[in-house]
Amino acid sequence: MPPIVSIVGKSDAGKTTLLERLVPELKARGYRIGTIKHNVHGFDIDHEDKDSWRHKQAGAHTVAISSPKKVALVKDVETEETLNSLATKYFQDVDIVLTEGYKQEDKPKIEVFRSQVHETPLCKGDEHLVALVSDTSLDLGVPRFELDDIRGLAGFVEQRFLVKSSQVIR
Amino acid sequence: MPPIVSIVGKSDAGKTTLLERLVPELKARGYRIGTIKHNVHGFDIDHEDKDSWRHKQAGAHTVAISSPKKVALVKDVETEETLNSLATKYFQDVDIVLTEGYKQEDKPKIEVFRSQVHETPLCKGDEHLVALVSDTSLDLGVPRFELDDIRGLAGFVEQRFLVKSSQVIR
Repeated sequence: MPPIVSIVGKSDAGKTTLLERLVPELKARGYRIGTIKHNVHGFDIDHEDKDSWRHKQAGAHTVAISSPKKVALVKDVETEETLNSLATKYFQDVDIVLTEGYKQEDKPKIEVFRSQVHETPLCKGDEHLVALVSDTSLDLGVPRFELDDIRGLAGFVEQRFLVKSSQVIR
Repeated sequence: MPPIVSIVGKSDAGKTTLLERLVPELKARGYRIGTIKHNVHGFDIDHEDKDSWRHKQAGAHTVAISSPKKVALVKDVETEETLNSLATKYFQDVDIVLTEGYKQEDKPKIEVFRSQVHETPLCKGDEHLVALVSDTSLDLGVPRFELDDIRGLAGFVEQRFLVKSSQVIR
């Protein structure tokens, strides 16, 4: 199972934007990235391919679209999948899984905090917090990166979760 | 691996419409259905959840959205997945997989043929053809069903691919 790191933060803190910048930076370093978005309210995803949407609407439990370059899947679940279960089933072929959300799970967390949007961070005192990305100086006892310091953050993620021990030793 | 049956036919023969009617009929009989749509031209599927779409656009290899009732996944592939590979990876929890298309693979096939749209059927002489659904009397050496005879077709699929041997014996 690949390592899982959660990008967390209060609503509108900038989680998606951070992921959008962190993914290409890690990809450029040669890693294959997976992402998981937590969606507590449910979603529609398959309108683009009308036919598969019609299959799902007709009552299919699992619907896939397969093309030469991509596979898409929509599957009903009885109970919400845990991150470990998702990673085991669908992410065996990536180097790291970055999640958007999942503050309740016990994965290492990187919080995005913007003092312009919220007064206090989400993860103060959370033992799983491993880094803070913020627009303001704040000591939560973990490394802190500026919002724009994507390279610094990627380096941290790489060193902590991606570099094999053999590479560290050299 | 669940049984796989392909609904095939020329373009605009009515494959999606047939699946749309067959899925609920089989579901009503207590089966859990999976479907696979063959898309040779590629597709976009994840516009509805803007955030996951942004992850994919940013270069993620695999993107999932997980909610309490549904999981959606978009994954890059190096080479196109076979039906067996898709069924093994993603359809272990359904009773049967119905595909739309995949006339090249060697799965049992049900052809939809409408004489109002095409002059000749697609699968004449195909050894994998197991049934014909058509608007005209035509003997291809396999059972034929009228376009509206969804119950008849579902009964055929059930008997041939879903009824366990123990149930047949009783």
